[in-house]
Amino acid sequence: MTRDELVQKIVEKKSYLCVGLDTDIQKIPKHLLSSEDPIFEFNKQIIDATAPYCVAYKPNMAFYEALGSKGWTSLEKTLAYIPKDIFTIADAKRGDIGNTSKLYAKAFFENMNFDSLTVAPYMGEDSVKPFMEFDNKWVILLALTSNIGSNDFQHLKVLDEDNFFDVTTHDMYEFVIKKALTWGDKSNMMFVVGATQTESIEMIRALAPDHFLLVPGVGAQGGSLEDVSREGMNKECGLLVNSSRSIIYASSGNDFAQDAANEAKKIQKQMAVLLEKYM
Amino acid sequence: MTRDELVQKIVEKKSYLCVGLDTDIQKIPKHLLSSEDPIFEFNKQIIDATAPYCVAYKPNMAFYEALGSKGWTSLEKTLAYIPKDIFTIADAKRGDIGNTSKLYAKAFFENMNFDSLTVAPYMGEDSVKPFMEFDNKWVILLALTSNIGSNDFQHLKVLDEDNFFDVTTHDMYEFVIKKALTWGDKSNMMFVVGATQTESIEMIRALAPDHFLLVPGVGAQGGSLEDVSREGMNKECGLLVNSSRSIIYASSGNDFAQDAANEAKKIQKQMAVLLEKYM
Repeated sequence: MTRDELVQKIVEKKSYLCVGLDTDIQKIPKHLLSSEDPIFEFNKQIIDATAPYCVAYKPNMAFYEALGSKGWTSLEKTLAYIPKDIFTIADAKRGDIGNTSKLYAKAFFENMNFDSLTVAPYMGEDSVKPFMEFDNKWVILLALTSNIGSNDFQHLKVLDEDNFFDVTTHDMYEFVIKKALTWGDKSNMMFVVGATQTESIEMIRALAPDHFLLVPGVGAQGGSLEDVSREGMNKECGLLVNSSRSIIYASSGNDFAQDAANEAKKIQKQMAVLLEKYM
Repeated sequence: MTRDELVQKIVEKKSYLCVGLDTDIQKIPKHLLSSEDPIFEFNKQIIDATAPYCVAYKPNMAFYEALGSKGWTSLEKTLAYIPKDIFTIADAKRGDIGNTSKLYAKAFFENMNFDSLTVAPYMGEDSVKPFMEFDNKWVILLALTSNIGSNDFQHLKVLDEDNFFDVTTHDMYEFVIKKALTWGDKSNMMFVVGATQTESIEMIRALAPDHFLLVPGVGAQGGSLEDVSREGMNKECGLLVNSSRSIIYASSGNDFAQDAANEAKKIQKQMAVLLEKYM
């Protein structure tokens, strides 16, 4: 999907909601367990119910891999089922030497036709670039994550030996963004920025004013949609805000899909107001 | 597998060779393509041929994921086929927020019974620890990788605000090792150190004298076995040196497995000498 198409969908639907398909066999409604492929059946009903209110779906690979080859099949079917005008994110956090990253790109972009993939930056340029050799496919690079462990390395103070910045030290995550801006552009690269890190979003916007940010951590992890939108929105929105558990597990009864739709609609309505206010 | 069992196997076999199962459907001998599961058939013959000369196998997940659910099945069968006294490494470079890392741990440690998993450090402690909650399972954390991109972030000079070291700045990868030493110990944690980074191995040994290092990059990527062994070996060996392409694709004819065995045996013989010399 191109950037223009994504922005157009956001404007049309008045939504920048990404629904995380963290589908856990332990948590889905019991009545689905008798179906042939319970994970796919759950996803299908969630997608049917929430598609009017979101612009992206983000299956988290771990939930599918935990079920082995069966889980992989459920994932393939889910991806084929998502409407083509909704942006898809493989939340995989991959990244390896060039010839290996190429194969991951093949798995996610060719075989399953995902629009994008989350990538970990630690191994540097040649681990990231293979994902950008596909037209209209995106790398979503980890910059500043929503978890406690983000303090371990992402906020380390790094000496600016390359004179990237006009002061002498900056946080590790700022270096990641600054370097990555030389690898791709706003048409093929986004950054992951946790919703719990609102105090840093202003700084990230100064570094990458036009790039989309994928923001997990609203909802179960405690981030605020209002704060993220105020600090992070640019004139083409520039945000995809993810919610997983609070939508897909809104309830566990026969009405789970309707309850998920209601929850997604509630967030979409807040987003419509925030788009009016900040875009 | 416990550390003692691993060290014992190294001494018995006079080998610290890890064979990388980077099995590529494009590269395996043509006569295997007519079998029901060519990837598994190739791995099976490679394992039968090389098992006497190695102490570990390391399937690279990308090669299996690139084949979708079929690839995942080949991987599951391969893992079940590897003799139980050989250490197994899922080269997956995973790492995500806690509840997600837990599921990856389940996928690789419970479902497939791998002994270990490679993990990327960028997301910090809570992304790594879930992998260490399993008895006799190992995290192999990326420290200093063998690719060009390792220069982008791993060698950044970081200010030592926590006074970890006795000088004011150190490389990012040294911080990763230093922090990680507080998360696990020599019985459940190893570090990935590229064979192309021999000048840094001495420094890494000073930081982590007793930990095992997994060293890729000998062979196709150009690292030297002699240099790595001289700088990296400790009194319990402390090294697993990986070779993938130069062994498994030693030839592409009907004798591919025998040629792989010969190549593995050649390396094992060098290792026997180096163990004598440096352990």
